[in-house]
Amino acid sequence: MTELALRARKLDASDELAELRSRFVLDDVVYLDGNSLGALPANVPDRLQDVVRRQWGELRIRSWDESGWWTAPERIGDRIAPLVGAAKGQIVVGDSTSVNVFKALVAAVRMAGDARDEILVDATTFPTDGYIAESAARMTGRTLRPVAPGEVRDALTDRTAAVLLNHVDYRTGRLHDLPALTAAIHASGALAVWDLCHSAGALPVGLDEHGVDLAVGCTYKYLNGGPGSPAYLYVRKELQDRFDSPLPGWNSHAEPFGMSPAYTPAPGALRGRVGTPDILSMLALEAALEIWDDVSITAVRAKSLALTDFFLECVAACTEPGRVESLTPEAHDERGSQVALRCADAGKVMKRLIERGVVGDFRHPDVLRFGFTPLYVGFGEVERAAWVLGEVLG
Amino acid sequence: MTELALRARKLDASDELAELRSRFVLDDVVYLDGNSLGALPANVPDRLQDVVRRQWGELRIRSWDESGWWTAPERIGDRIAPLVGAAKGQIVVGDSTSVNVFKALVAAVRMAGDARDEILVDATTFPTDGYIAESAARMTGRTLRPVAPGEVRDALTDRTAAVLLNHVDYRTGRLHDLPALTAAIHASGALAVWDLCHSAGALPVGLDEHGVDLAVGCTYKYLNGGPGSPAYLYVRKELQDRFDSPLPGWNSHAEPFGMSPAYTPAPGALRGRVGTPDILSMLALEAALEIWDDVSITAVRAKSLALTDFFLECVAACTEPGRVESLTPEAHDERGSQVALRCADAGKVMKRLIERGVVGDFRHPDVLRFGFTPLYVGFGEVERAAWVLGEVLG
Repeated sequence: MTELALRARKLDASDELAELRSRFVLDDVVYLDGNSLGALPANVPDRLQDVVRRQWGELRIRSWDESGWWTAPERIGDRIAPLVGAAKGQIVVGDSTSVNVFKALVAAVRMAGDARDEILVDATTFPTDGYIAESAARMTGRTLRPVAPGEVRDALTDRTAAVLLNHVDYRTGRLHDLPALTAAIHASGALAVWDLCHSAGALPVGLDEHGVDLAVGCTYKYLNGGPGSPAYLYVRKELQDRFDSPLPGWNSHAEPFGMSPAYTPAPGALRGRVGTPDILSMLALEAALEIWDDVSITAVRAKSLALTDFFLECVAACTEPGRVESLTPEAHDERGSQVALRCADAGKVMKRLIERGVVGDFRHPDVLRFGFTPLYVGFGEVERAAWVLGEVLG
Repeated sequence: MTELALRARKLDASDELAELRSRFVLDDVVYLDGNSLGALPANVPDRLQDVVRRQWGELRIRSWDESGWWTAPERIGDRIAPLVGAAKGQIVVGDSTSVNVFKALVAAVRMAGDARDEILVDATTFPTDGYIAESAARMTGRTLRPVAPGEVRDALTDRTAAVLLNHVDYRTGRLHDLPALTAAIHASGALAVWDLCHSAGALPVGLDEHGVDLAVGCTYKYLNGGPGSPAYLYVRKELQDRFDSPLPGWNSHAEPFGMSPAYTPAPGALRGRVGTPDILSMLALEAALEIWDDVSITAVRAKSLALTDFFLECVAACTEPGRVESLTPEAHDERGSQVALRCADAGKVMKRLIERGVVGDFRHPDVLRFGFTPLYVGFGEVERAAWVLGEVLG
């Protein structure tokens, strides 16, 4: 056994989160793609069978009340809240991340007022945020300016209405400084909208503590909600009364069953709802979130950093110098829960890794991306992944 | 046995669709609320278990390709297509009805051009369509004018950009004349957007035949997709190249995995996609739609009319004259697949009906609503429902 394998064994033995792995359905594949699709929580299949067979099949329409379907978006939002540092009553679940970006950004621009005519968007963002921001700008008569997160401070002016930023860069895994950037945005009088897709469930976010205005995120990565599970929208309590949705569907009405032709928005977070919630996916997500009941996000963050540190060390030991280059920052306060390695022929390399039981993903044009979900990835797997990578790279 | 009960027995015996009932999970409740939430198709629970346990649990991320997750929105759209009279390649499934109304109406207004500055909306519509239309008007700088469907012809001018209409009124069950109204809208140079929530799966729609421009609908009523299952968007083939979405998420990009910061819309119907599709709900819907493989929508319509005719006849025979008043048109070509009865104390009456095993729903302020899903409702149940109603009304 190599020194690294021995180290991995020790790290696994002292890992206080190690037993959480049993809450997921896993096999001997080294699954480092939980930042794209989280693994299946073991309690989801039976829960979903109950939702389908009993709640839908037997109670049918009665389940909207009796099984709590109607209130699921805000109830499940309250389950996500502690994971992102939010008090209850500020998050609703529903729709896709893209749709929530649209709601959040249009609402932010409206709150900022007509004198502020520019939106800043993270130029390094996952593309959909940029596309949707372009539409939000077009439809609110604002100008969109893409800037790298490091340039946001210099780009802020008294014309800035809102800034849409990613907490963690989907490609490089770089963690942006949410507290400092939010403070800078506020100092300029603009609103801060954060995309938490690649941070929620992997590290503390502190939405309330840092005064974030609006935030969105998906639930199928580190929250393990299932393929395409509903996204969420956070609206800070103090702003909820001014949240003016571009998608004022009947679910956000103060009296949804009053069937009034006039729209009167509901109070609170549920103003962010739109249409009928997608119950099957939503209740699978609810079961998936129960895994977190006794889990500390601080402990998750500590393990996440230990995993990525160890992976970088193992990769350095297992590969020829210069064969791969890490795009992921060394500094802990700049690192999310993934490692991105630039590598020649990355597409082919990832294919061979997957054939050998190490699943990450490839991001065009030359990036191997490995996500580390602290709830179910162990140090032994990390060592094995690096070792297989070394073999594949020859 | 009464004469009506005997008639019901004969009608059931000669019902060529009677055996379809075995494709659903039903009990001895008379379920007349399929126009709100369709019953559970018998093949859905096992399918969903396979999706969860094998596709998600074992294949994980590979399922986006290997299990056909990525192409589900257009594949399932093609399954809905024949039910609404559309050739393939014009429907995508995803998002809620409200979100699809927004996409369709904004896109329609953009196609109509800047000189047309007014949107007409069905004043009798399910409220969400009106709320969303108001937002679409506000965000495209148009004026919204609510008009009753019967007044649309007179309201059309050369300023009309688009008209949003319901095919069947959710409250009264009135079927509007889609061919004639669409022709009138086209004659004025405007675009016709139809909401098919209460018609798709209950009667022939003929989208292609009648030249409808855009249409939306839910899938959890007569299509039995499950609570809050994803809605769909139809964009007529000739208009797809001009479909300019207000929600241009990455799933509608010509190269979604190219990760380009510049948005280039995909060709065809998938331009109507937005974010990551909600796979669990979507594949439950796909299973539910397989029920229709050998079912003729013409036969469904014939049975639907026979059911509502018979219900009206039974209600007349079982209740005191004047105790209830039908809001549903007598004429077949003006009737959807539901019967709405105005009734004093309708809320209490519906509660007592439900206690006695007859499930319809109550619509504020005074409407008893009964939906007739021809795939699983029989004539004996219709007779029983009317008989129980007579008893409840005393």
